[in-house]
Amino acid sequence: MKNFSYHIPTRFVFGRGVEAEAGPQVRELGATKALIVYGGGSAVRSGLIGRVEASLDGAGVAHVALGGVKPNPRDVLVYEGIELVRREGVDCILAVGGGSVIDTGKAIAHGSCYDGDFWDFFCGKAKPERTLPVGAVLTMAAAGSESSNSCVITQEATKTKRGLRTELNRPRFALLNPELPMTLPPYQIACGATDILAHIMERYFTGEADVDLTDRLCEGAMLAVIRAARVAVKDPHDYDAQCQLMWGSTIAHNDTLAVGRTQDWGSHQIEHELSALYDVPHGAGLAVVFPAWMRYHMEKNVMRFAQFAVRVYGCGMDFEHPEKTALRGIEAHEAFLRDIGMPVTLRELGARPEDIPALAAHTKKTNPDGTTGGVFPMTPADIEAILRLADR
Amino acid sequence: MKNFSYHIPTRFVFGRGVEAEAGPQVRELGATKALIVYGGGSAVRSGLIGRVEASLDGAGVAHVALGGVKPNPRDVLVYEGIELVRREGVDCILAVGGGSVIDTGKAIAHGSCYDGDFWDFFCGKAKPERTLPVGAVLTMAAAGSESSNSCVITQEATKTKRGLRTELNRPRFALLNPELPMTLPPYQIACGATDILAHIMERYFTGEADVDLTDRLCEGAMLAVIRAARVAVKDPHDYDAQCQLMWGSTIAHNDTLAVGRTQDWGSHQIEHELSALYDVPHGAGLAVVFPAWMRYHMEKNVMRFAQFAVRVYGCGMDFEHPEKTALRGIEAHEAFLRDIGMPVTLRELGARPEDIPALAAHTKKTNPDGTTGGVFPMTPADIEAILRLADR
Repeated sequence: MKNFSYHIPTRFVFGRGVEAEAGPQVRELGATKALIVYGGGSAVRSGLIGRVEASLDGAGVAHVALGGVKPNPRDVLVYEGIELVRREGVDCILAVGGGSVIDTGKAIAHGSCYDGDFWDFFCGKAKPERTLPVGAVLTMAAAGSESSNSCVITQEATKTKRGLRTELNRPRFALLNPELPMTLPPYQIACGATDILAHIMERYFTGEADVDLTDRLCEGAMLAVIRAARVAVKDPHDYDAQCQLMWGSTIAHNDTLAVGRTQDWGSHQIEHELSALYDVPHGAGLAVVFPAWMRYHMEKNVMRFAQFAVRVYGCGMDFEHPEKTALRGIEAHEAFLRDIGMPVTLRELGARPEDIPALAAHTKKTNPDGTTGGVFPMTPADIEAILRLADR
Repeated sequence: MKNFSYHIPTRFVFGRGVEAEAGPQVRELGATKALIVYGGGSAVRSGLIGRVEASLDGAGVAHVALGGVKPNPRDVLVYEGIELVRREGVDCILAVGGGSVIDTGKAIAHGSCYDGDFWDFFCGKAKPERTLPVGAVLTMAAAGSESSNSCVITQEATKTKRGLRTELNRPRFALLNPELPMTLPPYQIACGATDILAHIMERYFTGEADVDLTDRLCEGAMLAVIRAARVAVKDPHDYDAQCQLMWGSTIAHNDTLAVGRTQDWGSHQIEHELSALYDVPHGAGLAVVFPAWMRYHMEKNVMRFAQFAVRVYGCGMDFEHPEKTALRGIEAHEAFLRDIGMPVTLRELGARPEDIPALAAHTKKTNPDGTTGGVFPMTPADIEAILRLADR
């Protein structure tokens, strides 16, 4: 187990109707005026924004609102939010939505405390040193942004999607009402579950061998999320399944399951290119990239992929040919993704094979030597080969 | 899944030599004078206290020390600590030890901010409203006090051992060096592992059926702790095994694994009577009580005990007679406890059968109707029957 430092400042309140806690929680932070960030009109029409505003009013917290966040959130709205914060004297961000909304809120929070261009943080030119407190009312189990240290924004003009990791990204509170995602289309619930699993898998396919406890936690969470996803996609009103997905999304991406181990994140970098170029849901892109990434890297650590197959998908271990077991695990994962309605090829995603070289070349280099991925470093040629595997 | 609120304020630093972080962490809290609480002379002789003091000195934090905490920590030393805090103007407690030391530190912290007798908090006469910040340098993987909301103290004169649960109990930081427990005798390592497992099991044997995610997390952690315990008891210098145990002790008792579900804690209440009366290690007492508790309650939820048997101890499921599977799980757990050198009967523990009625009568009543235990409420007669099962 590697050394680690770990601290989750986020306060979680979980259950039906917990959006009514928004006002008291903002007060608890000592804030007096909140910027409510949200996405489409459905949050207004459903009455959710109204309930949140009523809670703020009840707690004596002033508020202004900024709607219009889209999936794969853009820099344009972040700039608008920063201006609004400054003009209105806002001292707290309240994000009401899923990962895109929360990430927009985080970027506004950082940018409001910075004299330069907030994109500096995302292109590596500067590091945020201060931020405004962010709270979240989660409406979708997926990105884990409600307590993660990450934030992903797309620069619209250049179609560049980039992530920022900093402890300043962690929200101060997260209100988790498992009833809110019940009105989502099954496709979006499936995208969310795929994203949750991908967050665990980026941590699971590590290079270390001495990580039994965190392996077991990752496996346990994957088992529960896979089971709940099958249920929730068929019946979005199953409260129990929505509970597992919502708490699963939270712990999948705040390192509860995976302290002290090397993580990869190469698949995420490749996927960012897909969703930036084609504007597809992040989860759908991950459904296409991850199985191809697994097939490509499997041979470098056959036993780990076999362990995944046996412990997560219940495959029988082939002790003579562990690589067969490993492959069966990847096939089982792909079958699961198909079952819940996800695309698993580039074509099904609507991507164009002729874009592959450019996608590979544009993928963010995360290592000093210009490769991508913490466990299995990849050159652009590797990434191209992975995307070709996904082009079936 | 039940509604919950959840917040762990503790900052964790994990790895070799992290006791050197004590000074900077105390500074970070804004404190200027620490009371170092510790146990026996071994912490001094090993150089640990010296390293901690050097770290405080380096950070410009003044300090006084209070040694002599014993297992099953007594009120007497708490009173002494409170007096020392007041006399010396201490504004932070730094506990260097295992659960007994950390619990003593917590009780001193609460008592120092209270005009009355600190025991008021433990006998239910008052609730703590303020406390001093507590930091921990953990030397033993067991009680989980390094981030739990609980604290257990024994009133020496009456041999009354009582726990206090409050969010004020959570330490502000925990420095976790897995090398520190390497010098412990295997028996103490085994007691610690038993305590860790018991903390998970108190949460695992719940009444709810809709808790798949937290079930899986509990099972995963138990698998890893059982494996690591077998290794560490044979070879205390196995760093990897000590890592799993140390992080396992932490997450086993801070609800990382078990939010949103009913918990029992009846076995712990029964055990408190044993360790208060005979001054045996808490883990050893739990090794005796838990299997008897399981046998006594098994029939009330056979499938949950069968699930434990199958998923944690790899027992084959007897679909015709699930109660046989459930029983095999209890036997497997008992066999594991014997393997690591734990007692599993009252006699092996050194307890006297003739004390059983008094032990049962004195066990803390945790429910308004005078019974004990959140999932399987027990009358004193039930507790007596359980202790008789342990008298073999």
